[in-house]
Amino acid sequence: MIENRKKRWLRTWSVLFAATLALCLGASFLPTRTAASEGIPPLESALPTTCSSSAAHPRHYKVAASPETVHWGFYSKNLAPVIAVNSQDYVTLETITHHAGDDYDRMIAGDPAIESIYHWTSDEQTVSDRGPGVHILTGPVYVCGAEPGDLLEVRVVDLQLRPSGNPDYAGKTFGSNASAWWGFQYDNYKDDPKPREVITLYEMDATGELDYATAAYRYVWTPQTTPDGTVHDTIDYPGIIVDHDTVTEIDDTLEGVKIPLRLHLGSMGVAPSEADVVDSIPPSYFGGNIDNRNIAMGTAMYYPVSVPGALFSGGDAHASQGDSELDGTAIETSITGVFQFVLHKQADLAGTILEGVNYPLLETPDSWIVHGFTYPNYLEALGEDAQSKIYELSSLDPALKDGSAKLRDFLMNGMNLTEDEAFSLITVGADFAITQVVDGNWGVHGIVPKGIFDPENVKPKPVDS
Amino acid sequence: MIENRKKRWLRTWSVLFAATLALCLGASFLPTRTAASEGIPPLESALPTTCSSSAAHPRHYKVAASPETVHWGFYSKNLAPVIAVNSQDYVTLETITHHAGDDYDRMIAGDPAIESIYHWTSDEQTVSDRGPGVHILTGPVYVCGAEPGDLLEVRVVDLQLRPSGNPDYAGKTFGSNASAWWGFQYDNYKDDPKPREVITLYEMDATGELDYATAAYRYVWTPQTTPDGTVHDTIDYPGIIVDHDTVTEIDDTLEGVKIPLRLHLGSMGVAPSEADVVDSIPPSYFGGNIDNRNIAMGTAMYYPVSVPGALFSGGDAHASQGDSELDGTAIETSITGVFQFVLHKQADLAGTILEGVNYPLLETPDSWIVHGFTYPNYLEALGEDAQSKIYELSSLDPALKDGSAKLRDFLMNGMNLTEDEAFSLITVGADFAITQVVDGNWGVHGIVPKGIFDPENVKPKPVDS
Repeated sequence: MIENRKKRWLRTWSVLFAATLALCLGASFLPTRTAASEGIPPLESALPTTCSSSAAHPRHYKVAASPETVHWGFYSKNLAPVIAVNSQDYVTLETITHHAGDDYDRMIAGDPAIESIYHWTSDEQTVSDRGPGVHILTGPVYVCGAEPGDLLEVRVVDLQLRPSGNPDYAGKTFGSNASAWWGFQYDNYKDDPKPREVITLYEMDATGELDYATAAYRYVWTPQTTPDGTVHDTIDYPGIIVDHDTVTEIDDTLEGVKIPLRLHLGSMGVAPSEADVVDSIPPSYFGGNIDNRNIAMGTAMYYPVSVPGALFSGGDAHASQGDSELDGTAIETSITGVFQFVLHKQADLAGTILEGVNYPLLETPDSWIVHGFTYPNYLEALGEDAQSKIYELSSLDPALKDGSAKLRDFLMNGMNLTEDEAFSLITVGADFAITQVVDGNWGVHGIVPKGIFDPENVKPKPVDS
Repeated sequence: MIENRKKRWLRTWSVLFAATLALCLGASFLPTRTAASEGIPPLESALPTTCSSSAAHPRHYKVAASPETVHWGFYSKNLAPVIAVNSQDYVTLETITHHAGDDYDRMIAGDPAIESIYHWTSDEQTVSDRGPGVHILTGPVYVCGAEPGDLLEVRVVDLQLRPSGNPDYAGKTFGSNASAWWGFQYDNYKDDPKPREVITLYEMDATGELDYATAAYRYVWTPQTTPDGTVHDTIDYPGIIVDHDTVTEIDDTLEGVKIPLRLHLGSMGVAPSEADVVDSIPPSYFGGNIDNRNIAMGTAMYYPVSVPGALFSGGDAHASQGDSELDGTAIETSITGVFQFVLHKQADLAGTILEGVNYPLLETPDSWIVHGFTYPNYLEALGEDAQSKIYELSSLDPALKDGSAKLRDFLMNGMNLTEDEAFSLITVGADFAITQVVDGNWGVHGIVPKGIFDPENVKPKPVDS
């Protein structure tokens, strides 16, 4: 009897030890990236492009990247949707980087989709409509029932690096950082020759095991000739394939430096209503090229809908980026994401935490993040020439003015605070960081932690419709 | 035998369980603030004000706050030192907030030192030399052997809230957030009456058990008459004692909100060489009112010395502040800190990570942080009228230009990187945040994590001299 009790104790203690150790280690060594397939329905085989009645359960579709499913350099309310989904449906979206031409061998070769999107000979340019911006965007996704005034929630369920298609680089993938003429450093060089553009190529593990990027090499940009005979002294056209016989690869680059991965899409947004074709570079009220590294897996963005169906597109994937995106680009790479679309009808927003949100809003597990810009809606504010004027007016000062007003409004509406309470809380408990200074409409984001509020004083989220 | 082995196993498992649980819980619930008295020598009884030969071991002195040990509103190379220390000595420095007058009862009454510093009747103003800035600074500390060109390292060994001296508030202490005319929100109000100034009083636990602040009440500023008969329609003079019969305390303020404590001194620095009396508000190359919430316990600041003895002062203590200090002040409170002063002679800097550092640099356990300003040295750049001109020129855009150049220089000097490597690393792996937009010379700080470098590629720190 005693013997048995001891045995039980022995077993109990060892099990307790093992369980505690497992929990403890589990808590300490949480994987930085996990496949978030749990809860995602199996893939449908067909892609609906018109709306049908809502299914009993959410569906899951995949939009593969191809010349037919991407648009290059712009958002537009006139684009035909590549898919139509109902609220709560999931979409796996392949996104292709617009910087793959910086190293054809590592970032294009052997991947039929990327080869096809970039295909350009003297006879044929498969995707010839490139501009006025630069990003390759996949979409648009038509969200059935979405109308101007609604809010579209886009949950970032999963993000995975796209492996290099070249068998020479099996298990690896690559990203390019272009220190370019539109970067903030361009007039601030101290070493000669100045100014200059520099490509730094980063290498990543595509199996998901390593959570950092290392530099493979760098080169200084040299004039490149595209198949139409144009010579590009600078990076002035999207998708130029760099002839590596004309550049000098410097292998000794950032030796021993490991850049932590922070996967995100630089550009996600809905189509704006103000113009037919909108440059993909400046972000605005509709989202777009916000370039906030915090829009990571496990977060959700809320976008104000301004055209029927919302018309969501995404691209400009980044393996990592620092706040400011100083030299012009992040580690630009190709990423496949899974997104869930949840439509919040305007009529359902009253009394919820989203009441009054008419700007792109980010929710992370720990915080709410508002996005301020030099102009909150530059298309409306700057009139007909808005898309060129915005580049002359870039400044962080009005972006903080806008960001702090948005955060004030969010706290007043969502947390039932007075204006004086909101400004005091922002000042002592919220942080403002520099999102980017390279996209014309410069960005400042304001971060307020969720944990400082008593949940009882916070308005509820709207119920998923 | 088997029985004994079982006993041993039983003991072993239970001990392993207990130890693992303890370690696990210990790791999860590390105290946010610990008394860091370990390793600090016992207090000396006398305060030397002249230099003697360096002692065999570091000494520890205490500078209590008093009308004789503080200066109000300015840094100056002409001030007589309150103490002279050798490199590696420790100083406990009492700092007193310049916002204690916002609630005399809670923040002044019953504390003889604060009462004395604030003492002002129609007959007598104990500290009458207030301005041109606003902060009460304790010091200066003369560091023996410090000369222009050297770097002074100031290690923040401990920071503790100063308890309220009023027995009615035993165990508690208070801080004031003034949403003021110099704040970034002042021209951005949407509710009436506008503009307005608002004081929000925060309450903290002075025993160190609770790691957050809660709002006690707020009031809108009303014209206040000082003992000299001047009526202050706005907060336009430091140390005004607010007559609470003239204001309406609104108790229902930020109900349920808990602001995490982030103790730091808003202002720490050495005396600049450019002028005899320098406004305490704009930060610059000599440090001063940097208002970076990251200058916390366990970190170290490096300041370029520009006058003999360095002449270090500190004050403007904050219980918490968000990046931007939007409305004009943090949670302003009184804090007692322990600082260790380590002098790095100019000749010892070559080949170390500090080579070329001619700006205020912060080292935290995890990162290096540079401070950029609208003007890196506004006193030199703006000439005779610098101290008024700087307030008209405030902008974040040049502050980021300065901050990114400093971070580039730090990486090139300290991590042996080329300019192109430095800019790429900054862009993909370093973050820029808005330090403050309320101190004339606006601030942007750049954060680079230490963990991304291979230690072998990082230059060594200088040996403590």
